[in-house]
This record gives sequence, structure tokens and C-alpha cells, in this order.
Amino acid sequence: MTDTVISSATKEVVIGFDRPFTVIGERINPTGRKKLAEEMAAGDYSRVESDTIAQVNAGAHMLDVNAGVPLADEPQMLADSIQLVQSLTDVPLSIDSSIVAALEKGLSVYQGKALVNSVTGEEERLEVVLPLVKKYDAAVVAISNDETGISEDPDERYAVAKKIVERAEDYGIPRADVVVDPLVMPIGAIGEAGRTSFSILRRLREELKVNSTCGASNISFGLPARPQLNAAFLAMAMANGMTSAITNPLEEEIMNGIMAADVMMGTDKNCRAWIGKHSGATRAAGGADVAEARARRREGRRRRG
Amino acid sequence: MTDTVISSATKEVVIGFDRPFTVIGERINPTGRKKLAEEMAAGDYSRVESDTIAQVNAGAHMLDVNAGVPLADEPQMLADSIQLVQSLTDVPLSIDSSIVAALEKGLSVYQGKALVNSVTGEEERLEVVLPLVKKYDAAVVAISNDETGISEDPDERYAVAKKIVERAEDYGIPRADVVVDPLVMPIGAIGEAGRTSFSILRRLREELKVNSTCGASNISFGLPARPQLNAAFLAMAMANGMTSAITNPLEEEIMNGIMAADVMMGTDKNCRAWIGKHSGATRAAGGADVAEARARRREGRRRRG
Repeated sequence: MTDTVISSATKEVVIGFDRPFTVIGERINPTGRKKLAEEMAAGDYSRVESDTIAQVNAGAHMLDVNAGVPLADEPQMLADSIQLVQSLTDVPLSIDSSIVAALEKGLSVYQGKALVNSVTGEEERLEVVLPLVKKYDAAVVAISNDETGISEDPDERYAVAKKIVERAEDYGIPRADVVVDPLVMPIGAIGEAGRTSFSILRRLREELKVNSTCGASNISFGLPARPQLNAAFLAMAMANGMTSAITNPLEEEIMNGIMAADVMMGTDKNCRAWIGKHSGATRAAGGADVAEARARRREGRRRRG
Repeated sequence: MTDTVISSATKEVVIGFDRPFTVIGERINPTGRKKLAEEMAAGDYSRVESDTIAQVNAGAHMLDVNAGVPLADEPQMLADSIQLVQSLTDVPLSIDSSIVAALEKGLSVYQGKALVNSVTGEEERLEVVLPLVKKYDAAVVAISNDETGISEDPDERYAVAKKIVERAEDYGIPRADVVVDPLVMPIGAIGEAGRTSFSILRRLREELKVNSTCGASNISFGLPARPQLNAAFLAMAMANGMTSAITNPLEEEIMNGIMAADVMMGTDKNCRAWIGKHSGATRAAGGADVAEARARRREGRRRRG
């Protein structure tokens, strides 16, 4: 049993074998979202707010927060985004940047135990990111590529993951706090991409005994009917042991596929969540709209002030 | 590579590793379909005709044909149904009965190499069904239960499957002509049902090196939103090596799930089928309605007569 505990000030999420799958909402990310990038650069975070609420209401257990707007002050924007999101929701966050200064600034304002997204197997990344992860007692996403790039050989990708896990242990970061991303490639370009991912995921679970995640939407890049492809990929990856994913909870097919796969893996005990969702008898708890969340935040500010 | 070749008079289907998944349409089966049972008992086979055409148009590669109406002359009804279905379509058939006399009568009228559904690991079944399969040079579905019932232990279920495969070889039936059904139980009642199936399926492929099938709809018995559960189960079973299933091709979610899983397994080369279906650029070939098929049959009769 490997449990990765991620938390906010008031809420814990556990990524683990034999637990329901952890959905990490991918939407707060200006990469490829031109409008969001422009708004964030102009200091308008209204879409970050609405994406926060919408994803949590749709069932996301965690949210990924990325503020990678070119030529902007990414560390400050990431820190601002994190504080904003944490004022709106208590779900734990994944702090997402390729800039170490942004990760550090994000960690410095984060309340709780964050998931740092990410470190690769490149020496210079390991040497700067792992000490940060240790300093803030965070968990970290380990991406299985290194200086030589992304190998198409699943054994090499597995070896990179193993190296990162061992290096993290050298820095005092337990194996349970490393969540490996096997790197999902677009299957429209690389026909082996699915099977390669499944093969690595199975070894991560059975041999390395670590939790796993991935940017799931990448699998369907360039193809039609992407949500259905993503849903099938996620269910198949779960059948091979994947325990979390960074994906779009606003897509009904994706959330349905994940919930159905939880039933199949026996992690939705007595099919309770599935029956609750589909019998029409219950309603998702904790639902709130943007106005409610903003009101709660103002209330909190007054109390603190 | 294990290829199970099933054929009609003019068409071959190959169930195999590294091939697109084989969909065997389940609809021509009066079990649990009261109206169909009443109609068949009264000699009205119009629904068998329409189910034949609808399933083939929906993408079924084979059709299962069952005529199990209580207190009726099942051998004659099964033979009649098979001849009717073969007059309407050239997709190969699975001949489905628990009555040996019905299997024999069905085989005697079948044109091509049929899939006999099924034999269990019970001694008295092995001794009568396997000689029939050999006599008609058919393939056979091997269901992994025996005199002791259905074990909840995947190892025992695997052992029964292995016994049937070996016994078939004793009768001169090659391993490639045995398609194992691991017996899918309702997950609403047995929370382990998914994982048990996946574990057996993986061993069937990797150790016993045989093709596999199952009555997929059973997994969701008693639960809401069954097509979505069936679709997730099928994708996850495919990720564990399953190569065919008896399921309902008329359910859009199920066919989408199977086609998406074929993309993920790399068996839909260059994603051609997926792109064809979802880009709107192409239309399923061979589509025909009941009237057209009936006209073709009349034409055929005139030619033969």
C-alpha cells in the first residue's frame, strides 16, 4: 500500500492503490488557452475563479494550477493564482511550472502539503527541484524523461522513473511522495503510445510500488471525439494500475469513464458513487456557484481582518 | 500469435492478439426477452431478422444465435434461426445453446466454420460437446466453471480453462480454436468481479495464449447506466488482453468504447476506423436495411431454386 497524502489547510486527498481514482482538474492553465493567457497577463483572474468552482463542482478532487504566460512574471502570477484558488476551494492543489522560481514562490504561499508538478530525470532539474520539495514537505510528480529526451522504449522510461524515485529518497523524500508520470504521447502520431503507457504503469505499480499520474488529454491530440478517447484511455490506464490523472472534469464522458472504472476496480465500494450519480436519488455534495464562493471568501476576509 | 478463424460461406473473421477486437452481437437470444420468446414460439421470426440487420449495420463482426425458448423444440428453432440469419447476412455466427441436440442440429445446417457456444469444464459436457466441435471442424467457447460451480478464486477459474484447452487438444481441437470465457459476474453483487475477470484474462493471454470472450453485459446487472459500465469494462478487459465479447452493438457507448480501446491498443492502424467514424467523412460500408436484405435473400433463393 502506497498512500500519497496531499492537503490544503483543511482537507486531505489520498492518492493510493485500492482507493478511488484521484481526478486533478487541468483547466487552470493558460498553455494553449489564448483568452485565459491574455486575461491573466492583464490581471483579470475571473476565469481562474470560474474554472475553480466549475471543476470542483464537476467532481475534481484536486486542481492543477499553472500560470505559464510568456513574458509575464510567472512566479508572482502563480502565487497569486494559488492564493485566489485556495480562497475559493479547500481541494488540495498541484503547483505546475517548469520555472523553479515559480515553484518556490508558489510553495511559499501554499497552505497545506502541495503536489509539485514536476521534476524530470534531468540532473539539473533533480538538483534544484528535489531540495525544494523536501524543504516544503511536498509531494512531487516525476516525469520519466531525462537529458536524452523521451525514450520510446518503455523499459528506459521505467528506468528513468526508478532513478528519480531513488534520487528523491536520497534527499529524504519518501517513495510515497513521488507520483510518477509515464509521459503519455499522442496516439495519432505514435501508434504504440497506449500500450507503452500501460506497460510502464503496470511496472510502476507492481515493481516500483509508486503512485502514478499523467496528462491524460495528450493521448488524443489531433484526433476527433477526444473526450471518448480520453475516457477509454483513462479506464484502460486504471486497469493497469494508474491512481490519478490531470484531466478535464468538465467533460461528462471523462468523469463517467473514471467513475465506471472505479466500479470495475472495486474502489467504488458497493457502487455507491455510481448509483448515487445515476439513480438521480442524490446530488453531488458541496456544490457551490461562483457567487457563493466569492461571498464565502469575503466573509472569511472580514473574519480574519 | 493465436488466430481463431470463424467463417460463413463467404466471409472470415479472425479473433486474435494484435487484431481489432471482435464484436459478437448478443441480441438474437430470447432469454430475458419475453416478447421475442413469444414471437419465436409462435413461429414469428421478424424480430430475428431485424436484429440481424441492425446489429450488422451497427458494426457487429459476428452474431450469436440462441433459440432457448422454454418448452419449445429448441433444436429445430435454432436450426431455423441460423438458416434465416445466414440468408440475411454473411457475418459468421456463434451457435448458442446449453442443449447438445440443439448445438448438433445448428451445426448440421450451418454454412462455414461456426463458433460453438459453449462447453464448460464439466466432464459430461466435455465428453459430448468436444466430439461435436471436432466433427464439424468448429471452434468453441470454453466457460471456466465445472461440477463444483463457479469459483471466486481466479486461479481456480484459470485452472478450469486450462483443463478445457488441454482436453480439447486430446480431441484434436487446436488451442487456437478454443476461445475462453472467464465468466463475468455482476459487479453489483460481487465487488471483486472486475478485478477477477481482468486477472484471468491476462493469464489467458500471457500464459495459456488463447483468445478470450465473455458475455460482457452481465457485469452491470442490476446497476443504473449499464451501457457506460459495460463500455468501461470492455475497454479495461481489452487492456488486459481480451480479444472478443458477446455484447450489444446497438448501444452507442459500447461500440464507441470498443473502438476507442482498439485505438489505444494500436489495433486500429493509424486510427483509421476511429477517424472514419468520427470525422463524418465516411459511412459504414455494407449498411443495408431489412427490406434490402430480404430482397437479396429472395433473389438468392430464386437463383438457387
